[in-house]
Amino acid sequence: MASPGSGFWSFGSEDGSGDPENPGTARAWCQVAQKFTGGIGNKLCALLYGDAEKAAESGGSEPPRATSRKAACSCNQKPCSCSKADVNYAFLHATDLLPACDGERPTLAFLQDVMDILLQYVVKSFDRSTKVIDFHYPNELLQEYNWELADQPQNLEEILMHCQTTLKYAIKTGHPRYFNQLSTGLDMVGLAADWLTSTANTNMFTYEIAPVFVLLEYVTLKKMREIIGWPGGSGDGIFSPGGAISNMYAMLIARFKMFPEVKEKGMAAVPRLIAFTSEHSHFSLKKGAAALGIGTDSVILIKCDERGKMIPSDLERRILEAKQKGFVPFLVSATAGTTVYGAFDPLLAVADICKKYKIWMHVDAAWGGGLLMSRKHKWKLSGVERANSVTWNPHKMMGVPLQCSALLVREEGLMQSCNQMHASYLFQQDKHYDLSYDTGDKALQCGRHVDVFKLWLMWRAKGTTGFEAHIDKCLELAEYLYNIIKKREGYEMVFDGKPQHTNVCFWYVPPSLRVLEDNEERMSRLSKVAPVIKARMMEYGTTMVSYQPLGDKVNFFRMVISNPAATHQDIDFLIEEIERLGQDL
Amino acid sequence: MASPGSGFWSFGSEDGSGDPENPGTARAWCQVAQKFTGGIGNKLCALLYGDAEKAAESGGSEPPRATSRKAACSCNQKPCSCSKADVNYAFLHATDLLPACDGERPTLAFLQDVMDILLQYVVKSFDRSTKVIDFHYPNELLQEYNWELADQPQNLEEILMHCQTTLKYAIKTGHPRYFNQLSTGLDMVGLAADWLTSTANTNMFTYEIAPVFVLLEYVTLKKMREIIGWPGGSGDGIFSPGGAISNMYAMLIARFKMFPEVKEKGMAAVPRLIAFTSEHSHFSLKKGAAALGIGTDSVILIKCDERGKMIPSDLERRILEAKQKGFVPFLVSATAGTTVYGAFDPLLAVADICKKYKIWMHVDAAWGGGLLMSRKHKWKLSGVERANSVTWNPHKMMGVPLQCSALLVREEGLMQSCNQMHASYLFQQDKHYDLSYDTGDKALQCGRHVDVFKLWLMWRAKGTTGFEAHIDKCLELAEYLYNIIKKREGYEMVFDGKPQHTNVCFWYVPPSLRVLEDNEERMSRLSKVAPVIKARMMEYGTTMVSYQPLGDKVNFFRMVISNPAATHQDIDFLIEEIERLGQDL
Repeated sequence: MASPGSGFWSFGSEDGSGDPENPGTARAWCQVAQKFTGGIGNKLCALLYGDAEKAAESGGSEPPRATSRKAACSCNQKPCSCSKADVNYAFLHATDLLPACDGERPTLAFLQDVMDILLQYVVKSFDRSTKVIDFHYPNELLQEYNWELADQPQNLEEILMHCQTTLKYAIKTGHPRYFNQLSTGLDMVGLAADWLTSTANTNMFTYEIAPVFVLLEYVTLKKMREIIGWPGGSGDGIFSPGGAISNMYAMLIARFKMFPEVKEKGMAAVPRLIAFTSEHSHFSLKKGAAALGIGTDSVILIKCDERGKMIPSDLERRILEAKQKGFVPFLVSATAGTTVYGAFDPLLAVADICKKYKIWMHVDAAWGGGLLMSRKHKWKLSGVERANSVTWNPHKMMGVPLQCSALLVREEGLMQSCNQMHASYLFQQDKHYDLSYDTGDKALQCGRHVDVFKLWLMWRAKGTTGFEAHIDKCLELAEYLYNIIKKREGYEMVFDGKPQHTNVCFWYVPPSLRVLEDNEERMSRLSKVAPVIKARMMEYGTTMVSYQPLGDKVNFFRMVISNPAATHQDIDFLIEEIERLGQDL
Repeated sequence: MASPGSGFWSFGSEDGSGDPENPGTARAWCQVAQKFTGGIGNKLCALLYGDAEKAAESGGSEPPRATSRKAACSCNQKPCSCSKADVNYAFLHATDLLPACDGERPTLAFLQDVMDILLQYVVKSFDRSTKVIDFHYPNELLQEYNWELADQPQNLEEILMHCQTTLKYAIKTGHPRYFNQLSTGLDMVGLAADWLTSTANTNMFTYEIAPVFVLLEYVTLKKMREIIGWPGGSGDGIFSPGGAISNMYAMLIARFKMFPEVKEKGMAAVPRLIAFTSEHSHFSLKKGAAALGIGTDSVILIKCDERGKMIPSDLERRILEAKQKGFVPFLVSATAGTTVYGAFDPLLAVADICKKYKIWMHVDAAWGGGLLMSRKHKWKLSGVERANSVTWNPHKMMGVPLQCSALLVREEGLMQSCNQMHASYLFQQDKHYDLSYDTGDKALQCGRHVDVFKLWLMWRAKGTTGFEAHIDKCLELAEYLYNIIKKREGYEMVFDGKPQHTNVCFWYVPPSLRVLEDNEERMSRLSKVAPVIKARMMEYGTTMVSYQPLGDKVNFFRMVISNPAATHQDIDFLIEEIERLGQDL
């Protein structure tokens, strides 16, 4: 009879008879084993009977994963990943996995079971009948489960349970009704690529340790620069950990270009520098200025028109004002796709002004850059080819898994001069290969995660035309939503006109407010509508969309569509859900 | 008969007879199909015969993956990930995968096949008979394979091939003989956790969209602060994209603590600030100072003793010197585990000096922090509990997959004050849950990758004691190597004494140089030995270890051991390999 003491491995007998010599004993033993806690009883039983499913059905509720595999592999593969053995994870620990002696079998079974958990989650993510989120308040979540870290190891059964629990409470960011952020959706090829990236587990600083990834970064950045419109795709760039850091790079490089001595001497050696960006631009510009020792007071916010686009005449006026004070304008950051309104600043007019005053032109196209992939929509970024640097986040509109943000720079070599420190332990000058592929010294980071592979593989799988189709579809959906809202009772657009990006900003006005005059009381009550609806959305878990105030506009919904899973029906659902959840307010 | 036109799906018949009604036709058709390019013939054949392996053996060399699965699933799981169907990837594209209609089956099959490729790679990684690297020069690699991005999509067969090719040329960073970087090894639980992280595909900025991960970051950072020795684990922190950024955070926060007005006013509003770190410290301190507008000239490098430890008396002397010039010392960054020598600065003495002069004490324990997990070795960081901030990279000595770097700060709330910009679209103040869990505004990044889950899950799986065992073992291996080198002819240690970390720095002196006097010519020739041996190592692909010059020491090997797969035999192998590759020099 199989017993816990007989080893970690036990092969189920194919006919399900368990211990053929003594079925009665096995059954009796099993009844006792059922009383054990933590699912171990079921597992022991399953081992005895060689049939995990039956054992689990007979009363167990604990995770069936761990013993649910049959000894029925007939594949010829090496290594075999069919998990041909029944593995009792309750007796296995991390130390039994590779590189342990005889670790191959438990490792393959364990990773395969993790994979099954992930695949279940993936399938569920796209199922509209599942919740987007199983919401719990922080203190609830802290109490419902023991998350603490301890001295002693846990067994692999517990580890698999943690994986399941973590996903149970996670947001399904690939769900067709998840619209909460600029990054939504879950691309299958991108996901596969990210798994591969994790498995390769290397670092971008040198060709030596990331040969393929370094080349793919080179190829991909060049392609992105071609699409921006820089001749022959020439220039420079890097994948950085997010748009905020990409924007900070732009500011850093612009400053260095104008005053290279700042690298050694610091800001004390240079005049007061001023950066310009619109009042609707991303907060990372100010964050970057604070970090770089420029100071947030030196970031001048330029006025926007009612659509959220920077007003060029105001830009020029403020540049002149700064110059008159003896300050030095060094950077204009125009936005292509603002965070809330999805507005595109008039890049050609901005480029003219930057040229006139010899100021570095940066375009923050973190959100809008994706539109460059669409022949129909790329005109919205006309003038981007005149920028000195561009932030473009494929993890937003292009649906690449997080994170994937690129900073593209027109002048080659500047990043290297700006950031290099010649660390001799990493960038040895007497290596046997072409050192220009050691890109690490142009980064602010030392170690750098491989963010390029998922974009590269997705690009191969979709082609430029595939990204184009995705983007055109999302913009079409946004227009569909806009058309509904314009016609439907109880909705008001925050600004008029067709959306230029997928941002659709609107108020839902519950029936009780529709009769009120447009005064402060109405505004005050309206400001409370979106937060309550959002809270209810999360508690029901049916959909998620963002809201915020902006300037003198009280809380409104900002719908954005980057999710490739979303359809017209999901847009309809959102509208109906908002009404269902908000009509009593 | 199955034909390409009959749809994307074709189920192999279980008995392998192919078209039972007309085996002769099938065979004839197959002979024709074999002449097709790109492996399609094999695949069609395989479909006809329902036996991919045989078809592949009969002459095909193209990837057998795509059709290698049998229609032999008998599991009861929902969803079933047994890839029960034979999928012809040559006719499938990314658009056939989820969220496509009927996308579930091809998606599960595709992801399962990707997983098989990854599992094969994992198993190979630990196999000493495989190469660490299949090295190709950059121009070779660019020519051998078409990496370019195009307008049109590729089919999923090609996508699977790209995965295989990418891994073929990758470094096996988990290989037992890969010693090239501070981050080596491939932890199976960490890998599983990273796959899960990719699948969850979310962002750390708010509890709203990353409830579990935000809580796990809270729990894990608190635990790390407890281990550092801050009372009750109080304080603050964040996981950042690498040690260089963590160190930059420390500098940023130290400056803000002393001169909060710098956030708005920039460096122009504050006196000249001076940072101090040892001449052996990591280059990121200077990189950070350049970026933050402090300037590299304001980073004073303190002398080290022959073991690479900062000399406290020199630190005090330089602080006084700076003060006499009217400058303001604001930061001392001591190193716990220097990059090359693995030296630990005397933290207690540094803490006394920082206290005396009221200077922020930062400890860069990116490399050495792991030793805090070992009761035997943590004394080397005595005094770290007096630091104001600590960088600690679990992705180095603790073997967590890349990237996982923590910046811990003793004073709570400082990071938030320093970095927050109150973006109303993200950090709405009228949310329905406790806003203290929205951690995004204390970061420099806006979007932030989930780096905590792999550490948390590994910690659960290993326990603190498991990390301790790993660290003790690596240090024991380093001592083993040190003892070999001390006794063995042809080796010289770069500095005397037992290693404090796993860094063992040594020269290999080929026979031809052993007879030379210790003069410039010998030094010059010795400096060329390590680069040549390293180049040969990479070309043979047998092992990888780093080398560099440092100060007046010419190129020497820096062996580091963080790889849990390494054994005494691998150390012996390294020594023998160095001699095999270098004895003729």
